[in-house]
Amino acid sequence: MNVGVLGSGSVGQALAGKLAELGHDVVLGTRDPANVAEKKGYAPSLGEWLATVAGAARLGTFAEAAAHGELIVNALNGLVAVETLKPLAASLAGKVMIDITNPLDFSRGMPPSVLTYDGASLAEELQRTLPETRVVKSLNTLTAALMVNPRLLADGDHTVFVAGDDAAAKAEVTALLRSFGWGDILDLGDLSAARGLELWLPLWLQLFGVLGRPAFNLKIVR
Amino acid sequence: MNVGVLGSGSVGQALAGKLAELGHDVVLGTRDPANVAEKKGYAPSLGEWLATVAGAARLGTFAEAAAHGELIVNALNGLVAVETLKPLAASLAGKVMIDITNPLDFSRGMPPSVLTYDGASLAEELQRTLPETRVVKSLNTLTAALMVNPRLLADGDHTVFVAGDDAAAKAEVTALLRSFGWGDILDLGDLSAARGLELWLPLWLQLFGVLGRPAFNLKIVR
Repeated sequence: MNVGVLGSGSVGQALAGKLAELGHDVVLGTRDPANVAEKKGYAPSLGEWLATVAGAARLGTFAEAAAHGELIVNALNGLVAVETLKPLAASLAGKVMIDITNPLDFSRGMPPSVLTYDGASLAEELQRTLPETRVVKSLNTLTAALMVNPRLLADGDHTVFVAGDDAAAKAEVTALLRSFGWGDILDLGDLSAARGLELWLPLWLQLFGVLGRPAFNLKIVR
Repeated sequence: MNVGVLGSGSVGQALAGKLAELGHDVVLGTRDPANVAEKKGYAPSLGEWLATVAGAARLGTFAEAAAHGELIVNALNGLVAVETLKPLAASLAGKVMIDITNPLDFSRGMPPSVLTYDGASLAEELQRTLPETRVVKSLNTLTAALMVNPRLLADGDHTVFVAGDDAAAKAEVTALLRSFGWGDILDLGDLSAARGLELWLPLWLQLFGVLGRPAFNLKIVR
């Protein structure tokens, strides 16, 4: 399948790399595709990333990635996701979009606050901004390496969530998660469930600080 | 040990009952100890509760429970906890207080919003209100029956948290949790970690809706 991944930090790199490895035709969208030398936060530079995927995926602008994808992965910084995606609405219409963003505001220090949009989640705000796109919140609750390789931890015995208003879109995302190795995929209902998923992040960040490494996840024991 | 439990809903009843069963001398504080017939939300009336504890615990006012306890359990409704506890500050000075409250505002429907206090948690606001009390946040992340009987679910293989500014107080609470049957007790650091613990509740409530029962919990797989 043609996939457009928007955002080239550690999450975008991990998703685009895994999707290419699984045989999908991937464009990784980034603000400036010519700038492959700059470190992307904690992630490698795009030059280093291109070397790891060995020609199986390519870089493009956000607009090129959005146009290319039948399926869209939103791995943008949560604080700029709305303004970045709004001009791409026509290109994204009718498509399933996996929304991995978290609207974390670190401006007042740690732990960050989670921004809300008149009480709603960023995922709902994106759905309002892109009414013809089929938004599914998923994967925002854990570290990038585990998103695409859940079996690295406890042989995959931990939980990932999906939430969204379109049942067929959730089924498509669930199938993709299974192809990554996920077994415990919990459907939380409509997109308003993204509020709880985004508000999980302060506890995740606290655990990251206490455990000293990001390779952990929650399991819903039931 | 003498324990004062403040708040007589399902959480206060579960904690007071378990503590009495373990041999502690318990006063369950309630707004009107003479009113034993009224249903307490989803929990039994206090008359029914008294029958289950068979004389091993007794009712009192909030002030009586606060004065009685060497250890305090705060199981009040989060929305009234500050105003209820403030007049009891002298009585609570020097004591360890387990804070189980959640500041959930259902006034705009489901899912509720979690109130914050200039960005901080209710636990921190209570610590500011009661500067001489040794506040430890714990047990606010799961249903009452599992708080005191964790082995009812997956033989206890799930996680509970402690957070607080006083290491000795956290050690005392940890020992109490072990006496309830808890094995996986994760120390999240100082009381600011209560922000993440309180913000977990919208996801907990969504899971409650989807699973259709409250007997679940999270495990931090690591």
